[in-house]
Amino acid sequence: MRVDVIANVDDIRSEDFVQKSAVVIDVLRATSTMITALAKGARGLLPVETVPEAQNKRSEHTFVGGERYYKKIPGFQAGNSPHDYMSGDIVGKLVVLTTSNGTRGLLKSQRASRLLAASFMNGTACASALASFESDVILLCAGCKNEFSLEDGLCAGMIIDAMETQFNQSLRLNDLGLAMKLAYRQCRHSLYETVMEGSSAKQLVKLGFAHDVEYCTGTDTVPLVPIAKNDLILTPLY
Amino acid sequence: MRVDVIANVDDIRSEDFVQKSAVVIDVLRATSTMITALAKGARGLLPVETVPEAQNKRSEHTFVGGERYYKKIPGFQAGNSPHDYMSGDIVGKLVVLTTSNGTRGLLKSQRASRLLAASFMNGTACASALASFESDVILLCAGCKNEFSLEDGLCAGMIIDAMETQFNQSLRLNDLGLAMKLAYRQCRHSLYETVMEGSSAKQLVKLGFAHDVEYCTGTDTVPLVPIAKNDLILTPLY
Repeated sequence: MRVDVIANVDDIRSEDFVQKSAVVIDVLRATSTMITALAKGARGLLPVETVPEAQNKRSEHTFVGGERYYKKIPGFQAGNSPHDYMSGDIVGKLVVLTTSNGTRGLLKSQRASRLLAASFMNGTACASALASFESDVILLCAGCKNEFSLEDGLCAGMIIDAMETQFNQSLRLNDLGLAMKLAYRQCRHSLYETVMEGSSAKQLVKLGFAHDVEYCTGTDTVPLVPIAKNDLILTPLY
Repeated sequence: MRVDVIANVDDIRSEDFVQKSAVVIDVLRATSTMITALAKGARGLLPVETVPEAQNKRSEHTFVGGERYYKKIPGFQAGNSPHDYMSGDIVGKLVVLTTSNGTRGLLKSQRASRLLAASFMNGTACASALASFESDVILLCAGCKNEFSLEDGLCAGMIIDAMETQFNQSLRLNDLGLAMKLAYRQCRHSLYETVMEGSSAKQLVKLGFAHDVEYCTGTDTVPLVPIAKNDLILTPLY
């Protein structure tokens, strides 16, 4: 099985996903938020690209959230903090989410045969799913403003490590995949401290979201894998 | 001091180098070849972009080498293997070199206040030089065909590690720099075996250049730092 890690959304074309399994990784915070919302009882998740698109979806059946530049969008029911998606308000609702990078990654990956969302919270569950699919894999690090984000790369490394060591997959990795596997193995026992050195975590701490970084660096805390259906609504695979 | 690692030549603009120290890294094989040529007595190195440019420089005072797609260019005196630059033929000559990625990286970085060439062979010497310059640093991984190359990233990690641990620099690293430091520290004692898993090394082995991979993964074998003068000719800093 071939596994390619891509550094950010702009480093890949939509057609490159055809006949592949794709995993979008936006640890801080979009995919961690999605996993949380599904675990807390949301009916499904719809990623949308623009603020007006999200606003147009507002109804009694939806819960509309998102951010631009780390901040909640005025008039939205929630921002992009996983802690905004833990109340009873979201139970049974379709969560409509627009974020700077994570939702853009999901939209870009639509042509994949299977499309998952991952973070540290469900890394091993994702690796298990990918091993069972038996098709080549793209691990798309959402990054930030066209740049690589440390925590997304380390999460890709975690998934690769689990596929190899726990699910006995023999993988052909691209060079970035090899590097991320090494980097993850070096810091797996100090993940929170390592992620805190990265630019996204520093920015979140500055804006008062230190608790989000702590929450999002917990590994395998939610063994639930969001997978997209044809209409791009994500629901739990298990 | 700020240190940014850039994944490949196309990920940065020429103007981003202004007032920075820049280091071009093309372990397999351009910068390893340059270090070898200077160590073996070449008078200087001139990187040029095109094959005709290189051909036009041919004279009794020059030694013209280069590659496209790993192979020697017809009519050139040498390819891009460091082993082509070890004979007495190059002593006192200006080596004119055109390669797919490494020389392109040097040309792109011309606006840096100081421009060095690094590989594993001179990693610690480079780190020492950068520490003494006291300006912000760009470590430019040459990569291959617009993609990240494992060995260039690991060499960036080696330079960062040496700056921090041997030369007591307090560095602010970008996210890719943080990841490369981790990756290098994980594999520093098995560098050859790790680099052999990467795409460049596999391609070189296929083409009969396995001995080049072995030679180029020796660390600190040549404590010589090529630095560019205004005319872009590189000569030893020490």
